Amino acid sequence: MNLLLLEPAEIRSDGTSVVSDGRARHLQDVLRVQPGQDVRVGVIDGGLGTGTVLSLGDGTVTLRCTFDAIPARPSVDLLLALPRPKVMRRLWAQVAALGVGQTILTNAERVERNYFDTHVLEPDVYRPLLLEGLQQARDTRLPLVSIHRRLKVLVEDELDSLCPRGVRLVAHPGSTLTFRAALDTNPAYVAGGQTRTLLAVGPEGGWTDFELQLLAAHGFGVVGMGARTLRSDTACVALLALLHEAIR
Amino acid sequence: MNLLLLEPAEIRSDGTSVVSDGRARHLQDVLRVQPGQDVRVGVIDGGLGTGTVLSLGDGTVTLRCTFDAIPARPSVDLLLALPRPKVMRRLWAQVAALGVGQTILTNAERVERNYFDTHVLEPDVYRPLLLEGLQQARDTRLPLVSIHRRLKVLVEDELDSLCPRGVRLVAHPGSTLTFRAALDTNPAYVAGGQTRTLLAVGPEGGWTDFELQLLAAHGFGVVGMGARTLRSDTACVALLALLHEAIR
Repeated sequence: MNLLLLEPAEIRSDGTSVVSDGRARHLQDVLRVQPGQDVRVGVIDGGLGTGTVLSLGDGTVTLRCTFDAIPARPSVDLLLALPRPKVMRRLWAQVAALGVGQTILTNAERVERNYFDTHVLEPDVYRPLLLEGLQQARDTRLPLVSIHRRLKVLVEDELDSLCPRGVRLVAHPGSTLTFRAALDTNPAYVAGGQTRTLLAVGPEGGWTDFELQLLAAHGFGVVGMGARTLRSDTACVALLALLHEAIR
Repeated sequence: MNLLLLEPAEIRSDGTSVVSDGRARHLQDVLRVQPGQDVRVGVIDGGLGTGTVLSLGDGTVTLRCTFDAIPARPSVDLLLALPRPKVMRRLWAQVAALGVGQTILTNAERVERNYFDTHVLEPDVYRPLLLEGLQQARDTRLPLVSIHRRLKVLVEDELDSLCPRGVRLVAHPGSTLTFRAALDTNPAYVAGGQTRTLLAVGPEGGWTDFELQLLAAHGFGVVGMGARTLRSDTACVALLALLHEAIR
């Protein structure tokens, strides 16, 4: 835990906060904090700052917090064909740590329908995993999440309001076009600007030709990582890293 | 499984091969192959080619195989401070899938000693995981693996023979130097050439100052991914993807 994340309601009007649960255990048992010590704190979707430990209780830590700037929301959004529940469970924290403003999960031809029945798609399950990723990466911006069971409806009717502007890219195994080249040739991309980029990552078996055409018809340019086909969680992490590198 | 990998000893002199175990079950139950059908085959550390299914038995598949070119060994090597066993288990297949010629595992100040006692470091455990990654990425080149309990001895006495030439980079959280910039300013790097690149990735808590100085004194230039600190498995996948992109 590189950052102690607090819910807005956990900050009292006098700037103090009493932390319990696993965060308090981590502060006491792993970081072994002592009164007077400073730790990095943040408010979910709010500022980063410093918390000075005031006192330690039985399973609680009381801190006085001051906050500075609110980090910018990551300018990358992810449109992900839902992977197997086991893989999706592993991805939540990694997606948040790598930096994603919005995660749009979707069905696709090669996604099994029963993947949508998993509790890994319930906010009670994924929110703590997203927070874990934010605490790892020292970010406060909780990714927005939406889940869509029909790719065609999503792309044709909903995507323009979910992601109104910016660059749209679709990753496709075997494509040799780099992110750099794909961005530089995309009329929606402004180097060094505030362009949002939406990256679509397909299911384990890849997008179908129909799906690629649907995405192309709605402004998605193809990018790739070369010849090697990766498991969807590895691909997702690798692609997000490449995109972040290309736009920084 | 995007490639059926065979041991050299599994290919008979007449070019046929009888596959059993999990590979045969995958061919029959998932890919549902039929006699006459072609599948992609490869020989470990040998060529890629085509296997034509001759017959299906009870838990066996007989193929006639022809092989073409042997893929080049990936030009990236990985020097990795040993992560927790659970993380290392997850990394083996991903490392092989992303493409690594040699994996050098090492101790470091912030690696717990008992991590070395895990069976995840036994060839019987990691070799099948490496093969899984190769089959995913359609490669035949099994990464070489060596395990070192003393970083200083490794770097000072052993590394020059393990990795005789090429570029050496060390990833350090917070560094803003991109792979592109690090390669372009490295005298050992020849663009488009056959330069080998060795990438050092630190433990969860990072390299110590002493370790960074030791690595710098032995030719490692620092690279980074910017401000976000990642879990070591996420970092490893992201960094390997970035390095492969920078040299392709």
